Amino acid sequence: MNKVHNYSAGPCILPEEVFQEAANSVLNFNNKNLSLIEMSHRSVDFVEVMDEARELVKEILNVPENYEVLFLQGGASLGFLMTAYNMMRKNKNGGYIVTGAWAKKAAKEAAFMGKSSIIASSEDKNFNYIPKNYEISNNLDYLHFTSNNTIFGTQFKELPKTDLPLVCDMSSDIFSKKIDVAKYDLIYAGAQKNMGPAGTTLYIVKKDVLGASSVPIPTMLDLKTHSAKDSMFNTPPVFAVYTSMLTLRWLKKNGGIKHIEALNNEKAALIYNEIDRNSLFQGTANIVDRSNMNSTFALNNENLKSEFDSALVSANISGLKGHRSVGGYRASMYNALPVESVKVLVELMKEFENKFA
Amino acid sequence: MNKVHNYSAGPCILPEEVFQEAANSVLNFNNKNLSLIEMSHRSVDFVEVMDEARELVKEILNVPENYEVLFLQGGASLGFLMTAYNMMRKNKNGGYIVTGAWAKKAAKEAAFMGKSSIIASSEDKNFNYIPKNYEISNNLDYLHFTSNNTIFGTQFKELPKTDLPLVCDMSSDIFSKKIDVAKYDLIYAGAQKNMGPAGTTLYIVKKDVLGASSVPIPTMLDLKTHSAKDSMFNTPPVFAVYTSMLTLRWLKKNGGIKHIEALNNEKAALIYNEIDRNSLFQGTANIVDRSNMNSTFALNNENLKSEFDSALVSANISGLKGHRSVGGYRASMYNALPVESVKVLVELMKEFENKFA
Repeated sequence: MNKVHNYSAGPCILPEEVFQEAANSVLNFNNKNLSLIEMSHRSVDFVEVMDEARELVKEILNVPENYEVLFLQGGASLGFLMTAYNMMRKNKNGGYIVTGAWAKKAAKEAAFMGKSSIIASSEDKNFNYIPKNYEISNNLDYLHFTSNNTIFGTQFKELPKTDLPLVCDMSSDIFSKKIDVAKYDLIYAGAQKNMGPAGTTLYIVKKDVLGASSVPIPTMLDLKTHSAKDSMFNTPPVFAVYTSMLTLRWLKKNGGIKHIEALNNEKAALIYNEIDRNSLFQGTANIVDRSNMNSTFALNNENLKSEFDSALVSANISGLKGHRSVGGYRASMYNALPVESVKVLVELMKEFENKFA
Repeated sequence: MNKVHNYSAGPCILPEEVFQEAANSVLNFNNKNLSLIEMSHRSVDFVEVMDEARELVKEILNVPENYEVLFLQGGASLGFLMTAYNMMRKNKNGGYIVTGAWAKKAAKEAAFMGKSSIIASSEDKNFNYIPKNYEISNNLDYLHFTSNNTIFGTQFKELPKTDLPLVCDMSSDIFSKKIDVAKYDLIYAGAQKNMGPAGTTLYIVKKDVLGASSVPIPTMLDLKTHSAKDSMFNTPPVFAVYTSMLTLRWLKKNGGIKHIEALNNEKAALIYNEIDRNSLFQGTANIVDRSNMNSTFALNNENLKSEFDSALVSANISGLKGHRSVGGYRASMYNALPVESVKVLVELMKEFENKFA
């Protein structure tokens, strides 16, 4: 049976060699005759995994010395709360650019221990664009944004212009392109797109941020707690951290960010060129704000839906259904999706046009 | 190479067939030609996993209808905070029986949004016993205790006598013996002892508890949030939930609680009989409070330590080192540890006595 062309929006495709090595380690890790998941997290073997995972993040993203890298639990959803707790300062007010459902949820959590101010929003057009030309008050403690909007298929192409500390939820585009970590005070990302399986969340935090909050923080939500214990304050999610480490090893071995960014650009160009060229389809996101990770599009004629869906199944293409709040289709093209899978989809769209246009 | 006798205190041994099936599913899940960890958590295949895991908990523990079962993230350490948030009522005061390091940490978190009152503590004797004969004020919202103390090797043999709602951290003895769920308002447990790999935390909560707190709760810490979404409010830790489900299937298939409790009693009797009989060793926990899961003991003569440690290595016995706050040795005998492994250890202790007594 051929490998599926897996366009799942997340959890999503990871490299085949990562699946192989993760499976092997569940049976016998490091030739210790023990499974990875039956070992103490304090064992030398697992401490090395955690250390290597953190080092790989630093190396691949060129993280400056004054930043800490942590692998925690709870997903970006708990991250919404944690980032707000850790970033509150004298104003007790966080600024949020609301570009989708996740950004909106993030803003909500800041109101728990402080205030949240919506600086700009694209909700008026069902989040199909990235807001520009907005005013940012200086009476804020930080500015939060979501670099890529998985559901709506938009992505920030440049950073918001502000002197405020920047906080970014990069769950769906971290490790997909070059970033300048020094521009951010805090970056966080659920693993389950470009980094690994669901179950761990990456935090990259400027050391100045640790312990600097103006509000009391519960132990487990305080990044300082985890930094002080090298990301092992409590039992970490062993399998998720290990498999993320394997995925980062794969990324490094295959040319790192520079190489993957070129491939991601190539994949995005292929699909968007076809969407724009093909008379049966249209993109749903504002052209200049289109995401390189999640390409959203729709049929011009909804009557062709069942035909197109059948064609996808025949071509072994999986996970292309759009999110219910947008409809249509969404091609999620994370790091591990081969260019070949995009070519198969584009070819299918061409054939579909030849048949039905 | 022979299988290691794995006495790790957690993460710990799981059934060999669980490792096999988990590894297979990382390569190809349900014959879908996709890895378990590259599928959407909203796919039919994974929703079935989550549903089965929750159903197995209900079936194995005979959970009454008016309880909800959830698989969340964050470990029991986040559970300390979540349980306090969810259990605070008009007194805004939680009662805690402090029988070890974890219970103490739990009590600390309640002071974040309310008060915590230490009802009884065994810290005066380095937690080597379970307190009895204490007064419990009625001006409390709940009584929290830790059923088994992994580090110190003690275990509650009967429930605290109180009319207060009972909250229990069962991380290290859940699924090891029969419990009457109806006696508790809230049970929680990190997976990584008897249930599965690290990375998910089980909550069994009376439905009356949901939404009844007297304090505001952040979204992700509110059990009602997760109950309303069938434990899928955000992306769950897929691998940890799946592998827990496999372990629960194994437990059910092998006679459930009744069978495993008998085996656990047999293992505990073997090791404690030997500790008490052998002139070279002594137990460190109060005899009537000894844990069936974690047996703590020490050499009478510390000069024999390196000899005994070498003998353990030769016998392929791993993970027996005691926690630094107790010293000596700790035999963690979770569900998946075979009786044979305990026999090997007991035999070794006998031989050691013959040689050095």
